[in-house]
Amino acid sequence: MSEPIAFLGNLDPDEEADFLAALGAALPEETIRPFRTLTPDERATVRIAIVANPDPAEVALLPNLAWIQSLWAGVERLVRDLGPGTAPIVRLIDPELARTMAEAVLAWTYYLQRDMPAYRRQQETATWRQLAYRPPGEVRVGLLGLGALGSAAAARLVQAGFRVAAWTRAPKPVPAEVTAHSGPEGLPDLLAASDIAVCLLPLTEETRGLLDAGRFAAMRPGAALINFGRGAIVDTDALVAALDAGRISHAVLDVFSVEPLPPDSRLWRHPGVTVLPHISGPTTPGSAAAVVAGNVRAYRATGRIPAAVDVARGY
Amino acid sequence: MSEPIAFLGNLDPDEEADFLAALGAALPEETIRPFRTLTPDERATVRIAIVANPDPAEVALLPNLAWIQSLWAGVERLVRDLGPGTAPIVRLIDPELARTMAEAVLAWTYYLQRDMPAYRRQQETATWRQLAYRPPGEVRVGLLGLGALGSAAAARLVQAGFRVAAWTRAPKPVPAEVTAHSGPEGLPDLLAASDIAVCLLPLTEETRGLLDAGRFAAMRPGAALINFGRGAIVDTDALVAALDAGRISHAVLDVFSVEPLPPDSRLWRHPGVTVLPHISGPTTPGSAAAVVAGNVRAYRATGRIPAAVDVARGY
Repeated sequence: MSEPIAFLGNLDPDEEADFLAALGAALPEETIRPFRTLTPDERATVRIAIVANPDPAEVALLPNLAWIQSLWAGVERLVRDLGPGTAPIVRLIDPELARTMAEAVLAWTYYLQRDMPAYRRQQETATWRQLAYRPPGEVRVGLLGLGALGSAAAARLVQAGFRVAAWTRAPKPVPAEVTAHSGPEGLPDLLAASDIAVCLLPLTEETRGLLDAGRFAAMRPGAALINFGRGAIVDTDALVAALDAGRISHAVLDVFSVEPLPPDSRLWRHPGVTVLPHISGPTTPGSAAAVVAGNVRAYRATGRIPAAVDVARGY
Repeated sequence: MSEPIAFLGNLDPDEEADFLAALGAALPEETIRPFRTLTPDERATVRIAIVANPDPAEVALLPNLAWIQSLWAGVERLVRDLGPGTAPIVRLIDPELARTMAEAVLAWTYYLQRDMPAYRRQQETATWRQLAYRPPGEVRVGLLGLGALGSAAAARLVQAGFRVAAWTRAPKPVPAEVTAHSGPEGLPDLLAASDIAVCLLPLTEETRGLLDAGRFAAMRPGAALINFGRGAIVDTDALVAALDAGRISHAVLDVFSVEPLPPDSRLWRHPGVTVLPHISGPTTPGSAAAVVAGNVRAYRATGRIPAAVDVARGY
C-alpha cells in the first residue's frame, strides 16, 4: 500500500464527488483523499497531488510532494499561483478534449447560424418574426488556429456543410475542403471572408491582443466571433466598440483575461455577448481519470515523474 | 406569353423580395406579380396563385383560379382559411426540408445538451458556474415520429454520438443504432428512457393532445422537450404544470396551437420555455422556387393540376 494521493480542488461538491469516484474507479489500488481529510502526519507522506483550482496555501502544506497532476489542460494560472519553487506540474493531455472542443465549435456555430441569440431577444418582447434562414453552405466559418483542436473542429464543420477556412501562423497543409490562410498578411484575408470567426489559439506573446480594433475593422459587417482560445487574445475595449457600432453582430466568449469574469464586467450585461464560464472544452471525470491513472501507474512503476510543464514558457 | 401568376404573401418585405427573386430566376418564362399590383381585369385572368400566409379575401378576388401553390409544407391553416369551395391547394414538398429539419433537431439538441438556457440564466445574474458536462454518449434522445424528417434527424444525432430511440405509431424497421418503440404501450417506455424528447409528429386526430399530463408524468425527472411537430399535439396547461413542478427542465417550442403565438401567452415569459416562431424547418427561397417551377412547368405542358391536398384529411 502506497502513501495516500492528495486531492485538492475548489469544485462544486457534486463535481468533486464525480472526479473522486472516477479517480477511485480508475486507480483502485491507490488511496485518494481530499486534502481536508489528511492529518498533518499524513500530509508529510504525500508524494502526488491531483489538483483542480487548488488553494496554493494548501499545496504549500505538502512538504514532500514529488509532482502535481492538474485535472485541466490549461495551467497558466496554476503555474502563476504556485510560483517558481513548486513541485513539477503535469498538465492533463486528454484525447477527449479535441472531441469536446470540436463539438462546442459546432454547437455554438449552430447557435449563431440558427439565430438563437436573436430569437431569444425577440422572445423577451413577445415578437413573432421569422428571420432569413442561412443554410450552412452559405455560412463561412473562419478558424484561427488549426492544431489538434482546430483540425477536429474543421472536420465537424465540413461534415455539417459549412464553408470552412483556417488561419495559421505559418503555412501548413490543410484538408482539401478547408481554405488556407497564413502569416500576418493572411489574417485580414481570413477575417474579411468569414461570417463567423472562431478563435482557438493558445496565448503567447504573439497572440496577446491579436484581435484588436484593426482586426475587428477587417471583419465583415455583421460577422460574429467565437472565442474558445484564451481571453487575453481579444482586446475587450475594441470588441465592445465593434459590437456597439454594429460592426460585429454577436460574440460568444468562453475565456477571459481574468477568470472567473468579475461580476462588474460590462460583458455580462452586453446584449451582443454570450458569456460562458470556460466550458467549451470540459474535462470529463471519466476520461481525465483514465489519463491520470496512466501517469500515476508509470510513476509507481519507474519512479520517474511524467513530462511536466516548462514553467518559463507557461505551458 | 401566359397570363400572370399571382403572388399572395403576408411576409416581411425582405422575405417577399427574396421569394420573388428566386421564383423569377427559376421561372424566367413566367410573369409573377404581387397581388396588389394586379388590376381587376388582370386578376380575372389568373390561373395559378403562389401563396405564403395569404389574405383569404384576396384569394377570393381571383375568380378563375385553377390551383394554388403553397410555399409551406403545412397547409392546415390555409385549408381552414380558404374553406371547402376553394381551388385545389398544392403543398410544398421540398427535399431540402428533411435536411433543414434534421439540422434543427441537432442544433437544439446541442442547445440543451450544452446547457445553453442555463448559462443564459446564469449570465443574467453574472454567475460563473461550470455545470456538469454530459457527453452525447450519455444523452438519450427520443424521437416521436420516424418518417422522412425523423429518419433524417436520427441519422444526424447518431452521427453526433447521441443515443437515439424512436417511437412510431405502428412497428416499423429502424436503423441498427436506433432503439425502436411503437404503439400506445410503447410511448411511455420511450418517454421514460429519454433525456430529450423530440416531437416530429403530424397533427391528426390520434396525435392531438397526445403529450398530456399522463405522458409528462412518464418522462424522466429533469428531461427536456423539443416540439417541432405541431402545437396542438402538446397540452399547454400540462406542459406548464410539468415545468413548474420541475418535472421537465426545459421546453423548446417552435409550433403552437395558434400561430403567431399571441403576445399574452404565458409561454413567452416562462423561464423554462424557448419560443421559436416556426423556423425549425424553414422554406428556403431557392429550393422552394425549384419545386414550384417544376409544378408550374408540368401544368403548362399538360394542363393537369399537380397532386393537391385532400381537404377532408387536411394534409
